[in-house]
Amino acid sequence: MPSYEIDKNDLLLIRQALEEDDAALVAALKDYHASEIADLCGKVSPEARERIVNVLPSDVASEVLAEMDEEHHPEEILFNLHPEKRSEIVEELDYDDATDLISQMDEEDQQEILEHLDEEDASNIRNLLSYEEDTAGGLMNTEIIKVNINLTKKEALDEIIRQSEEMEDFYIYVVDDADILQGFLSVKEVLKSRMDVHVVDMVSRDFVYVKAEMDQEEVARVFSQYNLTSIPVVDDEMKLLGRITVDDIIDVLQEESTEDILKIAGVSQDEELGGTWQDAIKSRLPWLIINLGTAFLAAAVIRSFDATVSKLVILSSYMTIIAGMGGNAATQALAVTVRRISLINLSDRQAYVTVFKEFLVGFVNGAANGLIVLAIAVFYDHNPKLGLVLFLSMTGNLLIAGLAGSSIPLILKRVGIDPAVASSIIITTFTDCFGFLLILGLASKLLL
Amino acid sequence: MPSYEIDKNDLLLIRQALEEDDAALVAALKDYHASEIADLCGKVSPEARERIVNVLPSDVASEVLAEMDEEHHPEEILFNLHPEKRSEIVEELDYDDATDLISQMDEEDQQEILEHLDEEDASNIRNLLSYEEDTAGGLMNTEIIKVNINLTKKEALDEIIRQSEEMEDFYIYVVDDADILQGFLSVKEVLKSRMDVHVVDMVSRDFVYVKAEMDQEEVARVFSQYNLTSIPVVDDEMKLLGRITVDDIIDVLQEESTEDILKIAGVSQDEELGGTWQDAIKSRLPWLIINLGTAFLAAAVIRSFDATVSKLVILSSYMTIIAGMGGNAATQALAVTVRRISLINLSDRQAYVTVFKEFLVGFVNGAANGLIVLAIAVFYDHNPKLGLVLFLSMTGNLLIAGLAGSSIPLILKRVGIDPAVASSIIITTFTDCFGFLLILGLASKLLL
Repeated sequence: MPSYEIDKNDLLLIRQALEEDDAALVAALKDYHASEIADLCGKVSPEARERIVNVLPSDVASEVLAEMDEEHHPEEILFNLHPEKRSEIVEELDYDDATDLISQMDEEDQQEILEHLDEEDASNIRNLLSYEEDTAGGLMNTEIIKVNINLTKKEALDEIIRQSEEMEDFYIYVVDDADILQGFLSVKEVLKSRMDVHVVDMVSRDFVYVKAEMDQEEVARVFSQYNLTSIPVVDDEMKLLGRITVDDIIDVLQEESTEDILKIAGVSQDEELGGTWQDAIKSRLPWLIINLGTAFLAAAVIRSFDATVSKLVILSSYMTIIAGMGGNAATQALAVTVRRISLINLSDRQAYVTVFKEFLVGFVNGAANGLIVLAIAVFYDHNPKLGLVLFLSMTGNLLIAGLAGSSIPLILKRVGIDPAVASSIIITTFTDCFGFLLILGLASKLLL
Repeated sequence: MPSYEIDKNDLLLIRQALEEDDAALVAALKDYHASEIADLCGKVSPEARERIVNVLPSDVASEVLAEMDEEHHPEEILFNLHPEKRSEIVEELDYDDATDLISQMDEEDQQEILEHLDEEDASNIRNLLSYEEDTAGGLMNTEIIKVNINLTKKEALDEIIRQSEEMEDFYIYVVDDADILQGFLSVKEVLKSRMDVHVVDMVSRDFVYVKAEMDQEEVARVFSQYNLTSIPVVDDEMKLLGRITVDDIIDVLQEESTEDILKIAGVSQDEELGGTWQDAIKSRLPWLIINLGTAFLAAAVIRSFDATVSKLVILSSYMTIIAGMGGNAATQALAVTVRRISLINLSDRQAYVTVFKEFLVGFVNGAANGLIVLAIAVFYDHNPKLGLVLFLSMTGNLLIAGLAGSSIPLILKRVGIDPAVASSIIITTFTDCFGFLLILGLASKLLL
C-alpha cells in the first residue's frame, strides 16, 4: 500500500534504527522505495544521511542519491564514501544522473572520482560534463540502442538483443482470476529466466498504483515523486482498470501550472491564453469588480482619518509606499506558498514552519525597508517622529503581509478550497487596509 | 528538418492548396507531422478544417483530431464526418483520446457515434466516459498488457506476444558509418518484416531531433508539441549523441513553472521553496528595495500635487483605488502574457494581436469599473465632476495597464531577457505613477 508521503511514524522508525547497528538499519530501510529513502534523508542529520547511503546496497544507494534534493548535497555524500563503494555506485547510475552529481563537485574532486572509474565510463561522463546543465546536452542520456543503416533485418535484430541491456525495461501487469492487480513483471527478467519458472515466482509485489478517482494533480505528484514512466489504475477492489503513461502527465502539469499562475494574478482559471478579448473580459471583469469592492474598504480606512490627512498632507504620499510594499511582500509569500502546496503535500508541522518562516522574513524585510524610510524622513523631511511612524508601519505591514500571504492559502487548502484563489487581489486588500490603518492610526496618535 | 513552428509560408502553402482539388491538398499535407497539421487547422476556417480532416487517411486524421486544440472543437469535426470514416477514425484512436473527444459532445451525438462502433470498442469507451475528465480514471488508457499470475513462463511469453498489439512501440535509432543520425526503426515493424529485408528499407527518415545546445525549456516545448516519449540529441554535424526521455522533462517543467510564478511575484528564481528564512530574505529583500525605490517615484508624483490634495482631501482615498485597480489589471495581463510566451513561441503577428487584445480588454474593463466609481461619486459624494475625473482616470489607467502588462514582457522576450522578470513590481510602479498622474492632474484642472 503506497502512502505517497513519508510521515512522522516512518521518521521515528528510522531515527530509532539509526541508534542501533547496521543490520537493524538495513532491516528498517528495506520496506521503503529509493525515492522515499531520499525523502527521509532530507529529514535527518548529514552524518545520518551518509550512514544510510553507506549501508544500502549499491543499486539502491545510487537511486537514493539520484533522487535526493540538491540542497542536501548528495554529491558530498558520494564523495565521502569509500572509493570502491563510490565507483560501484557511479557505475550503477545512468550517465546523466552520474554527471549531474559529479558536476556539483569542484574540479579536483571530479578528477579523483573519474580516475577510479573504468576508461569507458570516465570518458562518457567527461563528455557529458562539457554540456551546460540546462540544455538538451545536459539532459540527455547516452545509453541508447542504435543500429547501422547497412544491416539486414537479421543482423539488426541480433544487434538490438546484444544492446538490450541499455534498453529501459518494459513492465507487464499481473492479475489474478478476478482481475485483481497482484504486481508487475519485468519483461527483461522474464526473457532471462529458466523456462520452467512460473509467473508467481517472478512477480514484484511492491508497486505503486493510483485509484481511478484520484485528482490528476495528485497523479502528477505521484509520477514526479517516484520517477515513473507509467502507473496502473485500479478501482476500490484493486481491480486493474488501465494505466497512465508519463506523456499524458506533461499536459496535466502545463495545465495546472497555468491555473496556478492565472489564479494568483486574479484571472479565472478557464481563460484560454489565446482566447478572444470578449472571453478575457468575461474572465477578468468579475475579479476586478471584487477588487473594486475591497479597494473601497481600504479607501474607507483612509476616509475615517480625513482629519489627520488634511492636517498632514505629506502622509498621503507615504501611505501609498507602505501599502504598496505590503502588497508586494504578501504576493512574494503567496507565490512561494502556493507553489510549494502544488508540488508537495505539506504536513501540519511543515505548514506551521512555513507560516513562522514567512513571519520572520516579513519582520526582517519590514525592518530593513523601515530603516530606509526612517532615514529619508529624518534627512529629507527633517521629521524624526514621522520617521518613527513610517518605520513602525513598514515593519508591521510587512510582518502581516508574510503572515497573510502564507497562512491564507494554507487555510484555504485545509478547508478544501484551491489555495491559488487567495489571489494577490484578496491578499493585497488585507495589506492595504492594515497598512493604512497602521500609518494613519500611528500618525494621529504621535504626530498631531 | 523540423522547424518546430508552423510559419507564414506553411500557412500560405496550405491556403493555396485549399483552393485546389483534394489531390493537391493531400500532396501539400504530406510533408507535415500530425501535430503540425493540427496547428495549421487552428489557423484556417472551420470549413477548411473539416475538409483537411476529410482528405487525410484515417490514421493521420485520428492523430490530428487528438492533437487539435479544444477551442477548435475537434469533436464537431469528428461528428460531421461520414459515419463510416468517423468509425474508422475512432477505432484508430486510443480509447482515452476517443473518450476525450466524445465526452465533449452532447448525449444524443455520443449515442450516435457509439452505435456505429463495434461492441467491444463501444463498451470500452462507455466505461471510460463514466470517469471525471480530471481524475486518474479520465487520464488512463485501458489498452494494456496483463498476464494471469498462475501462468508458466512459456504461457506468459505467448500471452505477451499475443497482446503485443496493445504495447506501445519501441524505437531504435539508425546511424550511418560516421554515426550520423539517419532515422529510426519501429521494433514492432522489424519483428513483423520478412527476414531478407534491410534496415535501409525500413528506416523512417521523417523524425524530430534536438541539438545538444538547445535550452531545456525549448526541449520541453518540442516534447509537448509532438507528444513524444523520447527524442534524439545530435551535434551540429547530426552525429547522434544520446536521447532525452519524457520523464526527465517532468522535472524541467515543474522547475520552469516555479520560476515563472516566482519571478512574476518578484521573488528570485533560485529561492528554494523549502529553504531557510535567511535564504528567503536574501532572495526577496533586493526586489523589495527596488520596489521601495519605484514607490518613491509614485510618491513623488503625489507630492508634486500636494496643493491639490490638501484642498481636496477626498482625492487621497480615491487615488489608492485608481492605482490599485491599475496594478491588478496589469498583473492579470502580465500573467496571461508570460504564461503564453512560456507555452508557445509567439509570431510577430500574434504578439501584436496580443497587445491589441489587452488594450481592448483594458479599455472595456476600465470603462466598466469607471462607471461604477462615477455612480458612487454622484450618488454618495454628490460630486458629478469628481465622478467624471474618476471615470476618466480609471479607464485611462486600466487601458495603460493592459498595454504595459502585455507589451513589456513581449519586448523583454524580443531583446532576450526572460519576460517573467517584468514582475508585478515593475508593472505596478508603472500603473501607480500613471494612475496618480491621471487622477491628480485631471482633478487639478477640472475640480479646483
